[in-house]
Amino acid sequence: MNYDVQAAECRQRIEAALKTAIPATVVEPLRGAMEYALLAPGKRLRPMLLLEAHGMLSPAGNDVMDFAVALEMIHAYSLVHDDLPAMDNDVLRRGQPTCHVAYGEAMAILAGDGLLNLAHELMLASAHPRALRAAHEISACAGVHGMVGGQALDIAHTGHAVDRALIERMQTGKTAALFRAAVCGGLILAGADEAQLAAGADYSLGLGRAFQIIDDLLDLHGDAAQLGKTPGKDEAEGKLTWPAAVGESQAREDARYWTQFAVDALAPFGDRATFLRETALRALNRIS
Amino acid sequence: MNYDVQAAECRQRIEAALKTAIPATVVEPLRGAMEYALLAPGKRLRPMLLLEAHGMLSPAGNDVMDFAVALEMIHAYSLVHDDLPAMDNDVLRRGQPTCHVAYGEAMAILAGDGLLNLAHELMLASAHPRALRAAHEISACAGVHGMVGGQALDIAHTGHAVDRALIERMQTGKTAALFRAAVCGGLILAGADEAQLAAGADYSLGLGRAFQIIDDLLDLHGDAAQLGKTPGKDEAEGKLTWPAAVGESQAREDARYWTQFAVDALAPFGDRATFLRETALRALNRIS
Repeated sequence: MNYDVQAAECRQRIEAALKTAIPATVVEPLRGAMEYALLAPGKRLRPMLLLEAHGMLSPAGNDVMDFAVALEMIHAYSLVHDDLPAMDNDVLRRGQPTCHVAYGEAMAILAGDGLLNLAHELMLASAHPRALRAAHEISACAGVHGMVGGQALDIAHTGHAVDRALIERMQTGKTAALFRAAVCGGLILAGADEAQLAAGADYSLGLGRAFQIIDDLLDLHGDAAQLGKTPGKDEAEGKLTWPAAVGESQAREDARYWTQFAVDALAPFGDRATFLRETALRALNRIS
Repeated sequence: MNYDVQAAECRQRIEAALKTAIPATVVEPLRGAMEYALLAPGKRLRPMLLLEAHGMLSPAGNDVMDFAVALEMIHAYSLVHDDLPAMDNDVLRRGQPTCHVAYGEAMAILAGDGLLNLAHELMLASAHPRALRAAHEISACAGVHGMVGGQALDIAHTGHAVDRALIERMQTGKTAALFRAAVCGGLILAGADEAQLAAGADYSLGLGRAFQIIDDLLDLHGDAAQLGKTPGKDEAEGKLTWPAAVGESQAREDARYWTQFAVDALAPFGDRATFLRETALRALNRIS
């Protein structure tokens, strides 16, 4: 199947599931704030990776969609909290006012907490026989050894002298960890063996590193429409970026290196990995 | 066993477990901020209720302590986020500077996120045969239909006209829900049947309602030392309190009513419920 058609079809299933994901029984305005954050336009890349990674080994089933939705909830909560005035202080996200601009700071904090908690509730309510292990993988990637840890490094070191090892660690936590949650979460649900899981983890690391470097490069030159946010903001705020650490030309080379690393990791899946392979290659196309 | 001796012994086991609960591998200053919040002096009431509720039906086991620790992490995260400037804007908690005063607002937000996430990781890593159901109960009580929902009602309605039904719903979410997480979480792990779980839920509702009303009454008249926070703050900030809704004398009567409700609910457990019964009666003693 054509990549664009497959992606559009998958995204449509995800959007339908997201629309009914926040229970009507949640009190207002909490419910509104959570839905505002979750349904804001987005690529749905993480839930898509989960479903497509699962699909490499097993036919699609509705019992897997709950995990895809939970992952998007975790992604959405992290954006809401990242955008807060005390964090990145962003007023626009995906072309809309950020959650705290629309609902106030207190409700945005609670909406983030609510989304993180609801993501876990959803996974814990699953009747899938591999629910516990998949939920643990996703939770571990989202937490202090993954995404939250990467975000803490970012906050703690913004404006400080550049250190390559630290930027790698920070970017792996901030970006690669949730890709791993998606890919390995999907693979676990599909009953992958240890070798397949290791391949999925390598792919996620490569994709995550490449993605973040490409994002850093686009921030240097991209326009607001392509980027979905204000370009040049990283540099102005003293954010740790890969081009600032190694230079722009080396950063381009590294983006290619990590993309190839991701593609190579998919070898054990052969033809079944077409979608994941194409996802990595298309990201790289954004800077070439 | 004497109540005070039993409580002290239980608290000591909990403190020992809390001290090693944040992995040394977590990045600084995130780790410090999480530990600061988790180890701040506290009564450890929720983990104690979990262990003692479990103990009514089953001998103590180390595999249950992870759930007690997870529950205290959820309680600690909620305090860190509640204290933030955008929420209750408290600078003192348990006699110490609040987490955002000590570590900055951004790190406090992340420490809260990290604690909520780590609580779930801990439960999901458990090998206890009833882990999934207990974790789901605890997560559901902590989330948008429980604690987070109650907190949202509090934030959304502070300063508005008083409505009894809304205050009940808010206080049930804010206080009774985590007591239910403790009691029913412990009972589930101990293999309780449906009737025992219903009794545990009733006890938690009674204890939670009584606790919150007693807290509201103490806020009217208590001194800072007894209260652990500045008295009169609720009224000054237009917080929804039970005495403001029904009058002080009725509030005292309601505190007694809900305490009795909690005690009566324990009937199916007979003599095994001494600790839980005494916990409810001692809370009431604070206002008599």
